[in-house]
Amino acid sequence: MEIVTSIEKMTQISLKWRKEGQKIAFVPTMGYFHEGHLSLMRLARKKGDRLVVSVFVNPTQFGPQEDFEKYPRDKKRDIELAKKEGVDVLFCPSKEEMYPPEYQTYVEVTELSRPLCGESRPGHFRGVATVVLKLFNIIRPHLAVFGEKDYQQLLVIKKVVQDLNLSVEIVSHPIVREIDGLAMSSRNVYLSSEERKSALSLFKSLKLAQELVKKGERNSDKIRKIVRDFILSHPYTKIDYIELRDPKNLIEKKEISGPTLLAIAIFVGQTRLIDNIILEID
Amino acid sequence: MEIVTSIEKMTQISLKWRKEGQKIAFVPTMGYFHEGHLSLMRLARKKGDRLVVSVFVNPTQFGPQEDFEKYPRDKKRDIELAKKEGVDVLFCPSKEEMYPPEYQTYVEVTELSRPLCGESRPGHFRGVATVVLKLFNIIRPHLAVFGEKDYQQLLVIKKVVQDLNLSVEIVSHPIVREIDGLAMSSRNVYLSSEERKSALSLFKSLKLAQELVKKGERNSDKIRKIVRDFILSHPYTKIDYIELRDPKNLIEKKEISGPTLLAIAIFVGQTRLIDNIILEID
Repeated sequence: MEIVTSIEKMTQISLKWRKEGQKIAFVPTMGYFHEGHLSLMRLARKKGDRLVVSVFVNPTQFGPQEDFEKYPRDKKRDIELAKKEGVDVLFCPSKEEMYPPEYQTYVEVTELSRPLCGESRPGHFRGVATVVLKLFNIIRPHLAVFGEKDYQQLLVIKKVVQDLNLSVEIVSHPIVREIDGLAMSSRNVYLSSEERKSALSLFKSLKLAQELVKKGERNSDKIRKIVRDFILSHPYTKIDYIELRDPKNLIEKKEISGPTLLAIAIFVGQTRLIDNIILEID
Repeated sequence: MEIVTSIEKMTQISLKWRKEGQKIAFVPTMGYFHEGHLSLMRLARKKGDRLVVSVFVNPTQFGPQEDFEKYPRDKKRDIELAKKEGVDVLFCPSKEEMYPPEYQTYVEVTELSRPLCGESRPGHFRGVATVVLKLFNIIRPHLAVFGEKDYQQLLVIKKVVQDLNLSVEIVSHPIVREIDGLAMSSRNVYLSSEERKSALSLFKSLKLAQELVKKGERNSDKIRKIVRDFILSHPYTKIDYIELRDPKNLIEKKEISGPTLLAIAIFVGQTRLIDNIILEID
C-alpha cells in the first residue's frame, strides 16, 4: 500500500491507472476507522480494480463551534487497517495541500442542503460538497462508496454528480451497527459508558417508529411525538431534530404514504449523533 | 462540423477523442459571433487537435433585470462562421439540457467575485463559474481559451481550475477591437449610431490613463477622476465603475506601483459596456 500526501502524485497515479484501463474505486473518509469504514472499503474493493481511500479531516465542513480540533485521529492504526483491506493508495493530504492560502472556491447544493443537518450545521454541506468534488478531481474514480448513515450527505453528493455532469458512480452502503444496534461513528468514542447506554435510544426509537407504521400509524406528528418522548426518557439526551421526509428530495411528509425517511439527530451529553431509517409500508 | 445538443453525445465524442490521444481545445461562448470569438477559435484551433465551441446563452449568469431574453442570437450565422474556422463540434445545448428541473448546484469563487462586475451584477460570476465547470466536465478539454475583455471572469475561471484541482490549461487572448478601438462585444449591436460614437470614450479613456501614467502620474484617485470626467463629457454615458486594481488578485491599488489593472464599466444609453487595460510603468 502506498501512502500519498501530494495532490500531484495522487493524480499521476490515477492517470496511469486510467491509461491502463483499470477501474478506480474510492472511499473518502475522515479517518479513525471503524467497521463502518472497513465495510465501505470491502465493497469498493470488490467493485474496482484499484482502491483509493482518503483520510482527511476536512476543516470546511466543521462549524466554528464544532469539534474539528478534537475530532479523533489515529493515523498509524488507520494505515494498518487499510493495509489489511487491500487498499492500494491511502491518500492523506495536509490541510494546506487541500486549502492553500487564497483558497476561495466552494460548491453549494442549495435545496438539499437546507433542512436537517444543514439547518443545525450551517455551511456543513458546502464543505462536504467542495471537498468531495476536489477529491473526485484529484483521484478521478470510476465509482465512490458512501455510507447511508449520512443519508443527507449521500443525496447531496449524488446531486453534485448529476448537476455538475461528473461521471462517477455513487454507490451507497447500508448503516453498519454495533451488536446492540448503535450506528458506528468515529464520534462514539466521545461517549462515557453511561451516555453510551442512553445513545442506544436513538436506534431503538427507529425500530419503535417502524413498529408504529407496521401497526397502521400514518401521522408523522404522532410518530415524531412518540419518538421524541421515548428518546427524552433516557438521561443526557437532547433532541436536535426528528424529521420525516421524502427519501428522494427531503421534502417534508405529513403522512406516511410511501417509503419515508425518518432522520434523527440528538445530543447525548456533548456528543451529537445521527441515525436514520426508511420507514416502509408493507 | 458536427452540431451537438445532447450532453451525453458530447461526452461520448470527447471520451473517444481522449482515448485516441487527441488534444481537445475548447472555446465557451454565448454565440452571436464577432471577430473576438473568431480570434479565440483560431488560437484554440492552433493549440489543439480537436476544437469544440459551445454556444449557450447561460441564464444563471444574468440578473433578473438583465438582458437574457433580448441577448442577441443568430444560430444560423454562428454555424457558418464556426465551419469556416474549422470547428469540429459546435455544442449547443438547450437551457433544459443544462439546467433540468430540480437543478440546484452552484460554484462560487468568493473574493475574486466580489468587486467590479461582481458588485454591479450579483450572482453573475456564480453563474459563470458554474456553467464553465459544467462545460469542462462535459467536454473534458485539455485547454480552454478565454478573452481578456472579461478580465475578472478570466481570473475567476483560473481560480476555479486551481482550487478545484481541474487539469485544464486556461489560455487567454488579448482584447480584439474594432478599427477605431471599441472592444468587440455582442452587446455592441444594441448601440444607436450616436451611442456608438460616445461608446468610444471608453477605449479612449484607457489610452488617456496610460498617457497619464507614462507622464508620471501615480495617484489612482487622480487618474480615476480624469477618466471619469473624460467619459462623462460624452453624451448618453453613465459610469458603473472605474477601478484600479492588482491584476493578480483584484486588490485595490491607491498608487500605481507596478502593473495595474484599470477596469471600467459604463452604460451608454441602456447598454452596459466593459473594457480594461493593464497600466504599465516603463
